[in-house]
Order: sequence, then C-alpha cells, then structure tokens
Amino acid sequence: MDRDEKYMLQALEEARAAASEDEVPVGSVIVYKDRILGRGHNMSQKLCDPTAHSEMIALTAAASSIGGKYLNDCTLYVTVEPCPMCAAALNWAQIGRIVYGASDPKRGYSLFTPSLLHPRTEVKSGVLEEECSKLISDYFKSKR
Amino acid sequence: MDRDEKYMLQALEEARAAASEDEVPVGSVIVYKDRILGRGHNMSQKLCDPTAHSEMIALTAAASSIGGKYLNDCTLYVTVEPCPMCAAALNWAQIGRIVYGASDPKRGYSLFTPSLLHPRTEVKSGVLEEECSKLISDYFKSKR
Repeated sequence: MDRDEKYMLQALEEARAAASEDEVPVGSVIVYKDRILGRGHNMSQKLCDPTAHSEMIALTAAASSIGGKYLNDCTLYVTVEPCPMCAAALNWAQIGRIVYGASDPKRGYSLFTPSLLHPRTEVKSGVLEEECSKLISDYFKSKR
Repeated sequence: MDRDEKYMLQALEEARAAASEDEVPVGSVIVYKDRILGRGHNMSQKLCDPTAHSEMIALTAAASSIGGKYLNDCTLYVTVEPCPMCAAALNWAQIGRIVYGASDPKRGYSLFTPSLLHPRTEVKSGVLEEECSKLISDYFKSKR
C-alpha cells in the first residue's frame, strides 16, 4: 500500500464515522510529513451547520495545530471531491496538495471557472475511488 | 434610513470591531424579519483559521439559532462582496437574500461561473458602499 492509500484509509475511517451518525459519509485528514494534523467528518446535520463539512473541520484543526493559516506543505486526503466552499477554503489556506477518492460530477469544485483552488495546489484523484464512492452511494440508496 | 441601511450599519459595526483587532475589516449580520440571528466579523488572524470570515461566523450562529441548516427567509448583510468560500456556504444554506456594500473585483464570488450562489438567492449591492469601501482601503493603506 502506498502513502496516499494509507492516508485515504484514514479519511475513509472518518467517512464511516459520519455514516454511523447518519450524515452524508465524507471524511478528511490533513497530513504534514508523516503526521496527521487534523481530521474531520461531515457533521452538518448534527451541528445544524451547513459549513461543517469534513474538509472545513480538518482545515480548522490543522491550522490551529500549527498556529498559522497557511498549509503549503500539507496534503488533504478526502474521500469525495471537495465542494466549492471547501475548495475555496483550501485556497485561502494555500494547501499544498489535495488527494481525493470519488469525483462529484454534480457539486464538485472542478465544475467552476476560473479554478477555485490556489494555483500552486497539486491534485490527485481516484485513490481508493471504489470504496469512497460505495460509501456515498450506499448512503443515498438507504435514504430512498 | 431604509431597512437595508439600518442593518448594513450593524454589519459596519462588526467590520469596525475587526479593524480594532487588526483583522481585514469585514462584518456581517443575518436577519430574519426584524431580528438579528447571527453576527460576525473577520477573525482569521486571531483564530489562526482561514475559514473564520465574518459571513461564516454569522451563518453558523444563525443556523444554530434557528436549529436548522436552511436560511431561506433570511438576509445576510455584509460590508464587502463575499468570497467564493462564503458564497458557496451561503448556497448550502439557501440564504434568501444577500445585501453587500463594496464590490471585491479581485476575490469576489461574482468572478466565477456557473454562479456559486443558490438560484433563488436575491442579491443587492452598493448599500452604504462608500463607508464599507473606505474601511477596507484605510486598513490596507495602514499596512503599506
């Protein structure tokens, strides 16, 4: 297993925590070198807060952990392509790299132009895509 | 003074609080009927949190206040055009109306397509524009 898969498994663990709380199952971790600085899962129902996406929670935790707003040398692992809110937040943080599992063709940040991401942010997609995608589709199937 | 100016003065009061804490001076209030449900000013330096914009703080407070994620019947008053992060957050909340003072031609949400806002959100700009704009330009002048 490579490093990206290792941390995506951690993000999947967060996503499963969301599922068990009946939230849309998305999870995130933010990594600096070989250390997790922040983690989060979607809590928007529980907190009654439309901004409480996994990426925002992980970002706030990571920035607080390093005592600074910029995460240039960090990687965000997230099970699903970030929405525009989260992408723009990651731009403010100048995150170094984003690795995501499943694409979100309806609400993903990549639908928008110009890019919502910081010009120096690298992106990799499709890591453990099947597991990430299955969690989401199982959740929405259970809601029908 | 009309209703929109009345609440923009409240947002300006928040923006001045940000300025006095040496933060980029932007302030917000969220109003339902004639009641302020949430207010906030930019605290991103103080909290070391790139997501701590005035709109996000006011949004979280308002959603918490009504115990729900949707603010269809609320108006956000903000001194400066929201950034893409805040606009997309306001989309998740399906905010009914946004009233802002000064435009932000460099980082405003309106630079992006498709629109980051919810299709039913109404927008009005230019309310107390001069005061809103002066606060920001004075802040950046003081930083040079």
